[in-house]
Amino acid sequence: MNSLYIIKIGGNVIDNSENLYHFLKDFKDLAGYKILVHGGGKIATQVGDSLGIESRMVDGRRITDVETLRVVTMVYGGLVNKNIVAQLQRFGTNALGLTGADGNLITAKKRPVKTIDYGFVGDIYDGSVNTEGLSNLLTAGFTPVFCALTHDGDGQLLNTNADTIASALAVAMSGVFDTTLIYCFEKKGVLMDIDDEESVIRDIDPVRYEELKIQQIIHSGMLPKLDNAFTAIACGVKAVVIGRSDDLGNITQKKPFGTRLSRNT
Amino acid sequence: MNSLYIIKIGGNVIDNSENLYHFLKDFKDLAGYKILVHGGGKIATQVGDSLGIESRMVDGRRITDVETLRVVTMVYGGLVNKNIVAQLQRFGTNALGLTGADGNLITAKKRPVKTIDYGFVGDIYDGSVNTEGLSNLLTAGFTPVFCALTHDGDGQLLNTNADTIASALAVAMSGVFDTTLIYCFEKKGVLMDIDDEESVIRDIDPVRYEELKIQQIIHSGMLPKLDNAFTAIACGVKAVVIGRSDDLGNITQKKPFGTRLSRNT
Repeated sequence: MNSLYIIKIGGNVIDNSENLYHFLKDFKDLAGYKILVHGGGKIATQVGDSLGIESRMVDGRRITDVETLRVVTMVYGGLVNKNIVAQLQRFGTNALGLTGADGNLITAKKRPVKTIDYGFVGDIYDGSVNTEGLSNLLTAGFTPVFCALTHDGDGQLLNTNADTIASALAVAMSGVFDTTLIYCFEKKGVLMDIDDEESVIRDIDPVRYEELKIQQIIHSGMLPKLDNAFTAIACGVKAVVIGRSDDLGNITQKKPFGTRLSRNT
Repeated sequence: MNSLYIIKIGGNVIDNSENLYHFLKDFKDLAGYKILVHGGGKIATQVGDSLGIESRMVDGRRITDVETLRVVTMVYGGLVNKNIVAQLQRFGTNALGLTGADGNLITAKKRPVKTIDYGFVGDIYDGSVNTEGLSNLLTAGFTPVFCALTHDGDGQLLNTNADTIASALAVAMSGVFDTTLIYCFEKKGVLMDIDDEESVIRDIDPVRYEELKIQQIIHSGMLPKLDNAFTAIACGVKAVVIGRSDDLGNITQKKPFGTRLSRNT
């Protein structure tokens, strides 16, 4: 099986043009097949504010009414995505900027209204990812760059969490590629001591994860991230790596990078 | 040779959701390979106004400073393009929304500053179009949807006239496909009598074109459009058809559509 990296970047990379430049430079050096997934960072909120559209967040999720969907379609699908693509082309990476609607690659279902109406927010389901279409683009030499938008297959774009998209892509593609999912965040990895950036735990398997939880070394904010990671691994993803975006070059230089979660260490 | 339609739509289709819906419905019914090219209509101006960015036009061309480039990247590359893609997917057409940066498909050169500084505006040149990359997407079953953005290959997106993009694509692809270029505009075609929508001239070849010019039947506003069309034909395009977007279905129904310009009638 060929190897595939799926890398997700968030606000700390996107909102800072210098960070983004360095990240993309390291990204282009990664050998083999790769997919980039990005959110919109603070730019969507800034553009929304300028247009007089208020951002409403519930538990870190954006409430997406019609006006907000317009903003995120402009910012995620246009401004952020196309600038990343243009920069990757400059580095010789044949990037292709995508929403889930393009090539019908990721379909989602509009989140049902329960206590909260999230508006045009899409939830991923089993079979959301068009594995064949995406494989064809990869083997044709393209590097897909996904923003945090999907569609319902019936003409409606949907705002969809970028972490979730990255994870769904990794699980779906793990049947075809030896898939490693990388989440870039602001820390060097999972830390033994939260105040010591050098205390990165290099490898965690499910047994060690249980130990770390019992020892209360992993703090509550990291638990959902790691739970989701181990779920992806249980669903076939080879490894999930959590690390700092500006250390990504370590992979190419065969140096340690972040915390590697996998079935067996 | 396989046949290919390249269809350009402008403001009168994009700015009216009903027109757009009907156009896309007819577009999906067109048999064979096809590419859609769109501008941004009035939406870019509206969004720019809302953001407090003044639109400056010279001879119908938008002066594109950094702020304006952000707006057109959001509106052309995001809002308009991705909504067209989502709607085409609903109709079962496997659309892929693109700028020239995506897949390195269209490279342009930033327009040199002479008397006017157009800013980040790109001019097409010989070899701008990545014919091989585009052919691969077509034969893989995708329907490319291009917005009016290209890149310089060095990380810079460029605002580029949609008519020019459509024409450049048609000329470049005519070496690989039997290419017909269709410009949708607000009239039924080139008219014998400007006040009579039913007086469409169905076929014009270069000889007839000279006659019509001498007889002053073609009014001045149409001359650049037709001159460009005959240049494209001289460069290998099979035919250029000029017609009204809501008549596009006539092609599928084998009824006459617009004015057909070609080497020989």
